[in-house]
Amino acid sequence: MKTVGIVGVGLIGGSFGLALRKAGYSGTILGVSSRRSLDEALERGAIDRGATLEDAAAASDLLFLSQPISGILKTLRVLDALVRPETLVTDAGSTKRAIVEEAARSLRRCVFLGGHPMAGKELRGAAAADADLFRGRPWILTSTPDHPVAAELRKWIGLFGAREIILDAAQHDRLAAWSSHLPQLASTALASLLHDRAPDAATVAGPGLIDSTRLAMSSFDLWRDILETNQTEIAAALDAYIEKLRALKADFETEFDKGSAFARSLRERR
Amino acid sequence: MKTVGIVGVGLIGGSFGLALRKAGYSGTILGVSSRRSLDEALERGAIDRGATLEDAAAASDLLFLSQPISGILKTLRVLDALVRPETLVTDAGSTKRAIVEEAARSLRRCVFLGGHPMAGKELRGAAAADADLFRGRPWILTSTPDHPVAAELRKWIGLFGAREIILDAAQHDRLAAWSSHLPQLASTALASLLHDRAPDAATVAGPGLIDSTRLAMSSFDLWRDILETNQTEIAAALDAYIEKLRALKADFETEFDKGSAFARSLRERR
Repeated sequence: MKTVGIVGVGLIGGSFGLALRKAGYSGTILGVSSRRSLDEALERGAIDRGATLEDAAAASDLLFLSQPISGILKTLRVLDALVRPETLVTDAGSTKRAIVEEAARSLRRCVFLGGHPMAGKELRGAAAADADLFRGRPWILTSTPDHPVAAELRKWIGLFGAREIILDAAQHDRLAAWSSHLPQLASTALASLLHDRAPDAATVAGPGLIDSTRLAMSSFDLWRDILETNQTEIAAALDAYIEKLRALKADFETEFDKGSAFARSLRERR
Repeated sequence: MKTVGIVGVGLIGGSFGLALRKAGYSGTILGVSSRRSLDEALERGAIDRGATLEDAAAASDLLFLSQPISGILKTLRVLDALVRPETLVTDAGSTKRAIVEEAARSLRRCVFLGGHPMAGKELRGAAAADADLFRGRPWILTSTPDHPVAAELRKWIGLFGAREIILDAAQHDRLAAWSSHLPQLASTALASLLHDRAPDAATVAGPGLIDSTRLAMSSFDLWRDILETNQTEIAAALDAYIEKLRALKADFETEFDKGSAFARSLRERR
């Protein structure tokens, strides 16, 4: 691939550009983003130059959509008229079903490969981009298309030090609901409850409360699209969590034993 | 105070001895514990020698009860016949109401001051004791008795670098239910649910799930007495958490806003 187009050059998009460069990619990297994001990305060396979506789509062998989910959905709706048939379009959205379905509907002229690099940090924007952001982290792909650019993308993902995992969109969204969306909501609910009922808890807060409320610092902005596009799985996980809290009240020992077994196995497998 | 008796020389009791020494205490430190704990504590220099409860009670100006809560309750029931009237008895139990009530019933001949140094670490036992374990951490006292040994204890707590906080037993237990016991149970329930419903979550686990399940590693052993002696407050906090999860399902944005406000204020105040 001679040209890569990154659409949405924030933390993930900027880190993708930096990771490509660090891994030895020598082609051209175009960025499609706001003026401010492009300036930050240029300063970090994450892209070679800014471009319009039209120009980037026409020029790129690989298009990497790293906007928020709602932005990716909008881009997919207009992209078909702009791309070359040999281009591979992939993405970095945090839910996969809505995006893969929109791509199947809207993107007829080229191949789409859903992706989700499971990486991030508290800072946002290309200014915080990091060539090692994906190192050691899962990178979900929703299929393994027989396509030369897809093969090359998978090679780069490996060179970034990420762990490629193949999951279809429904499997991804179900697993993400349990392993990522539910922990977020459990933390948000805990922090919101303490806000209402024990604002003085801060005077005695220990490291446990700090750990338990770290996810709650996330703003709704980052979560609106995820909650919107994974509603069914998230509602099921929340209902099951409420049921589990009731079961815990009835039998602490059983739930402590299962909980500590899971928490330990999680750490052993990493 | 010329002699201090530490009853239950584990992580907290051993750290109390080491912290006293580091802060300049030059009197005698007696330890009452199992043979193995005494050996570990002697090796670490946390105590000067082992003693029976009878001998330590008769010799000590300050008795520091740092057993599990049920052990503290048992010790209080037999201690009255053994202590001198000028001795101050204090403790390090994680709940305060049951202990303060038992002391009021059983300990008639000397003064009791409920205490809770809110510190700990994952390792247990005197071998893991640390002279700086209490540094920067809250040390709850349930009253401020006009007693020379109490005044001296408060001076040492200050020298340990701990933050003295005065809360009566009921206030302590209420606040602990929200800020410590509920976060533990929320984490245990989350981990137990993932154990049942998404054991494969480990393949895609990110730092959020790791943070959210850290408390769940605690074993039931450490929590049995806390759950037993703070039942009413804990049940109320669990019920309120279930209600809050329902409210969250109905209106994500409001709860995210309150949750992130609390999580941020918690970090600013530290």
